[in-house]
Amino acid sequence: MRTSELDTPSLVVDLDVLERNIAGMAALCKDIGITQRVHTKTHKTPEIAHMQVAAGSRGITCQKLGEAEAMVDGGLDDILIPYNIVGKPKLERLVNLSRRARITVAVDSADTAHGIAHAADVAGIEIPLLVEMDTGSRRCGVQSPAAVTMLAQHIESTTGVTFAGVMTYPSRASARAFIDETVESLGAAGMEADIISGGGTGSERASREMGCTETRSGSYAYEGMTRLGRSEDLNAERCALRMIVTIVSVPTTDRIIIDAGQKSFTSYPPSPYGHIIEQPDAKISAMSVEHGHVDTSECDRHFYVGERLSVIPLHQGMTSNLHDELVAIRGDEVEHVWRIAGRGRVK
Amino acid sequence: MRTSELDTPSLVVDLDVLERNIAGMAALCKDIGITQRVHTKTHKTPEIAHMQVAAGSRGITCQKLGEAEAMVDGGLDDILIPYNIVGKPKLERLVNLSRRARITVAVDSADTAHGIAHAADVAGIEIPLLVEMDTGSRRCGVQSPAAVTMLAQHIESTTGVTFAGVMTYPSRASARAFIDETVESLGAAGMEADIISGGGTGSERASREMGCTETRSGSYAYEGMTRLGRSEDLNAERCALRMIVTIVSVPTTDRIIIDAGQKSFTSYPPSPYGHIIEQPDAKISAMSVEHGHVDTSECDRHFYVGERLSVIPLHQGMTSNLHDELVAIRGDEVEHVWRIAGRGRVK
Repeated sequence: MRTSELDTPSLVVDLDVLERNIAGMAALCKDIGITQRVHTKTHKTPEIAHMQVAAGSRGITCQKLGEAEAMVDGGLDDILIPYNIVGKPKLERLVNLSRRARITVAVDSADTAHGIAHAADVAGIEIPLLVEMDTGSRRCGVQSPAAVTMLAQHIESTTGVTFAGVMTYPSRASARAFIDETVESLGAAGMEADIISGGGTGSERASREMGCTETRSGSYAYEGMTRLGRSEDLNAERCALRMIVTIVSVPTTDRIIIDAGQKSFTSYPPSPYGHIIEQPDAKISAMSVEHGHVDTSECDRHFYVGERLSVIPLHQGMTSNLHDELVAIRGDEVEHVWRIAGRGRVK
Repeated sequence: MRTSELDTPSLVVDLDVLERNIAGMAALCKDIGITQRVHTKTHKTPEIAHMQVAAGSRGITCQKLGEAEAMVDGGLDDILIPYNIVGKPKLERLVNLSRRARITVAVDSADTAHGIAHAADVAGIEIPLLVEMDTGSRRCGVQSPAAVTMLAQHIESTTGVTFAGVMTYPSRASARAFIDETVESLGAAGMEADIISGGGTGSERASREMGCTETRSGSYAYEGMTRLGRSEDLNAERCALRMIVTIVSVPTTDRIIIDAGQKSFTSYPPSPYGHIIEQPDAKISAMSVEHGHVDTSECDRHFYVGERLSVIPLHQGMTSNLHDELVAIRGDEVEHVWRIAGRGRVK
């Protein structure tokens, strides 16, 4: 099948670009001496995770337990979930999943650690835990190196869990002091962080310099504006993900309407909402729920109903989460249709 | 099952509120003398569409063909698709669907009308078409009353399609002149618009005053900030949709983190991103992809890991489109778990 035969809007990944991005990040991490533990939230697709592991990633990262379940179903066997897992339904699922694969979980409180420990202990297993540190992002995480050590000691003294290290997000040079103090504080208590996990894409060198042992980079696989920062930097050589859309209306000479809006692309601002590969001077100026509004006033050609365009979305992860299928193409040929198995797995 | 046993984040609809909203809009439309043709894009759930039809809606509206397929699969039999349907795969699907239910489609160009006409003619069926008018929203639609008549004449003279009327979105008082001129222009050409379709929620009286025969109101079923406008107006008596979430981190005394972020709620701005029913003075100040950041500095109580909260989302339609299931509750009891059958049906 050719891409021109796909119904639209279709989410497609260019395999040549994807393979180049995966190889490039693997080479960079090898070069600077940091282990990859790729974050799969961007693509949520087991087939792509396998490509990343084959390129050298030591296991993967999944943001939610449901995504990890989808990845284990897809054959992945070593997963970090950098997310506090809380509540009876999830603890049962975590124990079940831990029987099928090596699952490491990050926690930031004794309450959360206790819940996991109790469920694991009853099941007769041990779950390795990282302590999440708030090194400046003001999201989750314990607030000081001393608090890391206190929680690590607590974990070490509790049946059902083991202390495996620490994690933070994102990696910033300013976090170095926090990590240095944490290593020192743990050492004074006779403990060691085997894993010091940082992230994400673009911060690999910062992670290395901060003393991280691994990086959870993820968005590099597709690349896109959330990292590259400017629409002008989006291009088909660097960005692997595209939406094939159809022009469904040409109501005026300066406007066309495409058949993909916020429910295909997400409502992630700002304008221009995406980059049109074939016609970079046509700007996606607004998005309704199911329509994309394109300003063609700077274009020197006519557009027609039924014409197709390829759009690089602004937020690859949010966009991927809206689609059941990912069409993997090489040139104009469809090579695979993959299920985005982690799509919607927010539980 | 009780709501307290649901894994989180869970999207739930309060049936008492939903039923009240459905009955209220049906009564309003009966009172002012306009036919309802409810838009189902907000909920995408056939069971709710059936409740709306039972309350008096003459059929339903679906924004995309894929949503209409999901609704026909769910037993609905009279559907308007106010969207230009373009391209071979969709035309085949449209013809197949038209054999199973009465499907009316809006078009704004001869190209689109021709495509539908040809597919219908080959199949030996007739598809009723509305002409979409741009009465000021600058999205799709023909640009003048004369253009409506020209396209209507074109449709009338083409085998496979019939002219059934006109539609616009949204209904605004300023559109009245356009509609009056259109009716006059059609009349001079010996034609009549049986259907004059307007939308959406909140514009029922405007639609009636503009001369519309029907209103495609949709978001009234759930109600929410995209219509009510201010977080202060969101309340559990008016808003039927909620997300049950769990507090997964209490890192500081002025911040809690809930287990739902942009992939559960959508990235629809602005802050506060949703209204917490149990604790209105706790503000959802930011959202990561899978975390909700809640500012509790104005609250005079302590929060704990594992506690549950109910959040009214800001954009009911975008939020519904992220979830496979909708849990229908009455009080604290789960009455149904419905599949959001139209979720992700952007094709």
